[in-house]
Amino acid sequence: MDIIKVNSFSYEEFINVFGNVIEKCPIICAAVWSQRPFSNPFDLEVAIQEFIDNLPTSGKEGILRCHPDLAGREALRCQLTTESQKEQRGAGLTSLDSTDKFRIDQLNTEYKEKFGFPFVICARMSDKDEIFQQLKERLLNDPMAELRTGIEEVKKICHLRLHDIFSGSPVTKP
Amino acid sequence: MDIIKVNSFSYEEFINVFGNVIEKCPIICAAVWSQRPFSNPFDLEVAIQEFIDNLPTSGKEGILRCHPDLAGREALRCQLTTESQKEQRGAGLTSLDSTDKFRIDQLNTEYKEKFGFPFVICARMSDKDEIFQQLKERLLNDPMAELRTGIEEVKKICHLRLHDIFSGSPVTKP
Repeated sequence: MDIIKVNSFSYEEFINVFGNVIEKCPIICAAVWSQRPFSNPFDLEVAIQEFIDNLPTSGKEGILRCHPDLAGREALRCQLTTESQKEQRGAGLTSLDSTDKFRIDQLNTEYKEKFGFPFVICARMSDKDEIFQQLKERLLNDPMAELRTGIEEVKKICHLRLHDIFSGSPVTKP
Repeated sequence: MDIIKVNSFSYEEFINVFGNVIEKCPIICAAVWSQRPFSNPFDLEVAIQEFIDNLPTSGKEGILRCHPDLAGREALRCQLTTESQKEQRGAGLTSLDSTDKFRIDQLNTEYKEKFGFPFVICARMSDKDEIFQQLKERLLNDPMAELRTGIEEVKKICHLRLHDIFSGSPVTKP
């Protein structure tokens, strides 16, 4: 995939390729298509980030709420989007033992009750232990700070998904 | 479904029920959940409309681009969302004869080339002949007027989908 090809896409082709770079929010890439041509992949990424930054607080919360729980019911039933499934599996979240599964369910519930959106983290940049640690630490944040953190993670996930599309292969964990 | 029950929903339950009142844009109802409690169904509908109205032009275009073509490939292959499938079938768009099918494909293509988004109409408030007529007429609009018209149709579709959810049964064509 290169940017010349991307700039030649109809909006349908564009959504088909980039529709899930922000989880379950095809409207975002569908909106950003209006800004083509893009000079390079970074230019496209910035357009996506700016669209997100310009949403009201409720819109940013909406983005987070479109994300699945880590190691949640959808993950165990393989009902995630292809991208999420790969990311959660890569971080070992789809094969937790019963103690870890119980613990993450408890932390996810506590997190969602406090913030009204799910814990979102770029799983490909972490492993299981780091994710548990982050979940415990971020539970202590105040809601506005945590919204900002969640959105920054959404952008990291988007960055790696874009990278996969442009490079044709998944980025490996650093 | 009543508003007391709706106000008691977690965001996950809320998205599960209202996620597709704006076609393939669960982010919108996910965002609007932040504004609960709602006094009544109308209050929820207004919150959705206001969220849409406050999006930039590209975001409104993005909403339209998440809609399928009328009588398009997805419709014929039954790959539409449940709501869209019912709406297009009700207006006779999934059983066009070959002349009508050829004509609507031609008009859809012409429309998308001119505007950069698909022709959106509240199919349940029209029949096949009216839809063809509207498509031909709206092709003559200027892009900004047509964006406004498309978004008004999105709101009509949303109104009927909300009505279905609250009444438990589909509205019949007037």
